[in-house]
Amino acid sequence: MIRTGFQVAARLGHRRALPGGPRVLPGLSPTSAFGSSVDSLVSIFCPKKTDLKDYALPNPSWCPDMLSLYQEFLEKTKTNGWVKIPSFKSNKDHLQGFKLPSTLAVTSDKDDSRLFTRCIQVEGQGYEYVIFFQPSQKKSVCLFQPGPYLEGIPGFAHGGSLIALVDEAFAKTAYLAGEGLITISLSIRFQNSIPLGSLAVMNIDVEKIEDQKIYMSCIIQSRDQQTVYAKSSGVFFRLPLEEGSSH
Amino acid sequence: MIRTGFQVAARLGHRRALPGGPRVLPGLSPTSAFGSSVDSLVSIFCPKKTDLKDYALPNPSWCPDMLSLYQEFLEKTKTNGWVKIPSFKSNKDHLQGFKLPSTLAVTSDKDDSRLFTRCIQVEGQGYEYVIFFQPSQKKSVCLFQPGPYLEGIPGFAHGGSLIALVDEAFAKTAYLAGEGLITISLSIRFQNSIPLGSLAVMNIDVEKIEDQKIYMSCIIQSRDQQTVYAKSSGVFFRLPLEEGSSH
Repeated sequence: MIRTGFQVAARLGHRRALPGGPRVLPGLSPTSAFGSSVDSLVSIFCPKKTDLKDYALPNPSWCPDMLSLYQEFLEKTKTNGWVKIPSFKSNKDHLQGFKLPSTLAVTSDKDDSRLFTRCIQVEGQGYEYVIFFQPSQKKSVCLFQPGPYLEGIPGFAHGGSLIALVDEAFAKTAYLAGEGLITISLSIRFQNSIPLGSLAVMNIDVEKIEDQKIYMSCIIQSRDQQTVYAKSSGVFFRLPLEEGSSH
Repeated sequence: MIRTGFQVAARLGHRRALPGGPRVLPGLSPTSAFGSSVDSLVSIFCPKKTDLKDYALPNPSWCPDMLSLYQEFLEKTKTNGWVKIPSFKSNKDHLQGFKLPSTLAVTSDKDDSRLFTRCIQVEGQGYEYVIFFQPSQKKSVCLFQPGPYLEGIPGFAHGGSLIALVDEAFAKTAYLAGEGLITISLSIRFQNSIPLGSLAVMNIDVEKIEDQKIYMSCIIQSRDQQTVYAKSSGVFFRLPLEEGSSH
C-alpha cells in the first residue's frame, strides 16, 4: 500500500542495502519498536464508528457468489474473531489520530485524490472487493469481483488489475499483522484469467515476520477452488505509525 | 495484456507443464509458425488510419516534462524508425481484421468494457501514458504520468498502478517484438514512489526470445535518471493471431 518517494525507500529497494535492517533508516527505532498488538492495529485501521463511506459493502452489482460468501464471512466476524476491514476513499482515512513515520515525507494532501483500487466510483464498473482479516491466524480473505472497466483480454480481468489488488490486500494485511507499511517487492504467476463480473477468492497468508520484513503469499482462485487464477508473493517493510493527525 | 481463462493458460502457469512448449497447446502450430515480421505486427497493431480515439495523445493535463519528452520521441518516429503505439479503448480495437487464436475462447464481447489502463476517462485524473516502440532494437519507452486517482500513499502513485502499467507496456512490446500474447509471470522491486502528477520514464527491453517465451525487463525512473522508481521483469507466451474479425 504505502511506499515513499524518498531515500528511505530508495535504500529499501537494494537488497544489499538491507543487511542489518534498521540502521539504513534514518530516525528509525530498532526492531523492538514494534510494540503494537494486532488488536490495537485493528482498532486504528478499522474504526467501528466513523462517518466515512465504506466501499467494502454489498451493492446491487455484486454477483450471488460474492454476496453469499460475504455473508458467510460476516457471520465469522461475530463468532470466530474475523474482522471486516473497512475500505475508505483514501489511506489517509485509515490513519485518524496517527500519521506516517516522519521519515516518510508527504508532499501532497489534495482532497481530490483516491486510493487506486477505489478509483472507479460507479458500482460494479471497476473494483468490487472486500477484505476480511483473521488476527490470531494472521491471514486474510479478499473477495474480488472485477467489473468491465478492468478488462485485459475481452471478457476477462486485466492481469494488472489483479496484481494491483494483491498489492493492496497484502498491504492491509501486512499492516494489521505486524506494521508492514512499505512494499519492497511483488511477484505473480498467472494461470487463468478471471471472467469479468465473476468472483475470485484471494487467500492471503503472512508466511513469516523477520526483523523488519514481512513475507506474504496469496493464491487467487474460484470459490470452488477448481480454478487457480494466480499465485503471488510479496515482501513488506515494517514501520510503526506515529501518533498525531494524518491530516 | 492478454491472458486466457482456459486450460491453455492454466497449463502455462505451471513451469513443469512447459518443458517442450507448443505440445501443451491444443491446435497450435510449432515454433516455426511465428512467421510475422515486426513490420507486419506493427501494421496490425498500430493502424495509421482509423476513426478510433487514440488516448495516447497530449492533453492539457500533461506536465511539461511529459509533453517535451513526447515531442522528442515523436521526432524520432520521423527519422529513427520509432513507432508511436496508439492506445484504444479496448484491445479488440487493435485487432481489426485479426482475432485471438481459436484456442483462446472469448466469452464476452460487451461494448461497455474498457482496457484497465484506460479505465479513468477524465484527462489527468488517472493514467496518462504513451508508448513508443523501436522495432529494430525491440525495445520501448513508456512515458507515464499518474493522476490523483492512482494514489497509494498520500501524494504518490499506488505501486499497483505502476505494475499494472508495466504489464500493459510489456504486453504491447512483447506482441510487437515477437507475438508475445499471454503474460506468464511478473516481478517488481520498488525503490521510490512516483509523485502524483509527475513524469516517470519506463525503459522496456526484450531480453531474449526462446521458442515460445519472451523475456522482458523494465526500469522505471525519473527523466534525469537520478531516481529509480522500480525495476521489473516479466515472461510472456507467444501465440500468433489468426486472420479474421475480432468482433
